[in-house]
Amino acid sequence: MPFTATVLTMFPEAFPGPLGVSLIGTAWREKGLWSLETLDIRGFSDDRRGFLDDTPAGGGPGQVLKADVVARALDSVTGPPRPLLYMSARGRPLTQARAKDWARADGITVLCGRFEGVDQRVLDARGFEEVSVGDAVLAGGEAAAMLVIEACVRLLPGVLGQAASLSSESFEDGLLEHPQYTRPRTFEGLEIPEVLLSGDHKRIAQWQQQQREETTRERRPDLWAAHLENRPAETSAKSQLKGKKAQGD
Amino acid sequence: MPFTATVLTMFPEAFPGPLGVSLIGTAWREKGLWSLETLDIRGFSDDRRGFLDDTPAGGGPGQVLKADVVARALDSVTGPPRPLLYMSARGRPLTQARAKDWARADGITVLCGRFEGVDQRVLDARGFEEVSVGDAVLAGGEAAAMLVIEACVRLLPGVLGQAASLSSESFEDGLLEHPQYTRPRTFEGLEIPEVLLSGDHKRIAQWQQQQREETTRERRPDLWAAHLENRPAETSAKSQLKGKKAQGD
Repeated sequence: MPFTATVLTMFPEAFPGPLGVSLIGTAWREKGLWSLETLDIRGFSDDRRGFLDDTPAGGGPGQVLKADVVARALDSVTGPPRPLLYMSARGRPLTQARAKDWARADGITVLCGRFEGVDQRVLDARGFEEVSVGDAVLAGGEAAAMLVIEACVRLLPGVLGQAASLSSESFEDGLLEHPQYTRPRTFEGLEIPEVLLSGDHKRIAQWQQQQREETTRERRPDLWAAHLENRPAETSAKSQLKGKKAQGD
Repeated sequence: MPFTATVLTMFPEAFPGPLGVSLIGTAWREKGLWSLETLDIRGFSDDRRGFLDDTPAGGGPGQVLKADVVARALDSVTGPPRPLLYMSARGRPLTQARAKDWARADGITVLCGRFEGVDQRVLDARGFEEVSVGDAVLAGGEAAAMLVIEACVRLLPGVLGQAASLSSESFEDGLLEHPQYTRPRTFEGLEIPEVLLSGDHKRIAQWQQQQREETTRERRPDLWAAHLENRPAETSAKSQLKGKKAQGD
């Protein structure tokens, strides 16, 4: 059985979106390397008017998606147990390490919230992991679900053409990527940095590593602090260069 | 002119996805409160074979989107200057504060990367803000672009039915939301927390605030540290309760 992403959503018509294009889409539709299923939560109301939501206990604005509706939708998914993800601003942030763990499973089941959220009891009772992507509030979990599924699927064997391009990416060793440049040599008066045209692979690797460190320090003090904690300052430059060489760039 | 989101992408067929459904979709297609435009980067090659990308300067795997192609696509967008966003794992993280700033503009122009990224010179020359959503690597920027556009559009006047539901959200005061519960009172043997059924609004507000603080401390030590820095510990409980009251919940 290929990796299966099952999405519980009130808006299946939002899919596949980005999951249907490029290498991710080809891997699904033509190569069968993974599959996408959407399950319409709207079919799982037991109310004859089809209501899915009710007012929050304790008061407050908006509506809350009912526990029993989500439970029935989830229980209709067959097959072996898989990671259950709930896309939520309250969740733990998505990381590359979490995506890698999920990509090793038989698949993932992703619940997209709407309204003010989902009754917490069904999340607790069924063991959903709450996952956030970006510290901003969304109208629903669908775009976030696509993002998580894409992050997992691209790690599956055979999905990306060149396995090599997985190695030197952002987050793989706790640093952001270095900037990229390509032809033409001059663009609107701006040159490609000279070192990249030197052909001196050692200098190039040093420059790229320096760029990665500078960008991470400037844009992501959180990642930079974690990076420093993991590697004692006096050995870092050396071991990183060795690491780069072993990866072949 | 309503708020316009213009997306520069190699895969316009990925859109609108989640941007076409629910209140966000209705606000666009029926109410005209915002508009979505996609611009196919593939039309802006000046190579007669239609190439958009070339090998990275300095070596390494993959391909890089060419600066001149992106520049021509961008220069074809007419209208007043707007924030230019480039979805990138190298970016500064999306925050609710950034979404609010962008939602106040006439619109946003969002560049979706593919391959190993975009030639850095066009990002620098045109003043793109690089934005990341979640610390995981994607196949392209499309899902991330949808997420950012959704975060902005839902803040526009009239898009969400009840303005009230904007007030007590995650990130609005640096804390995550409290959990939500709704009928039935018992779900698979699990009760709604008693305090929420008490009708005692002061106790409910205290409990919800306590839940917000606990969840933030546990799941987001980064937000918790920033929260503590912004509010001296001895005055926080009092001032937060006052704040909750003023917001009417």
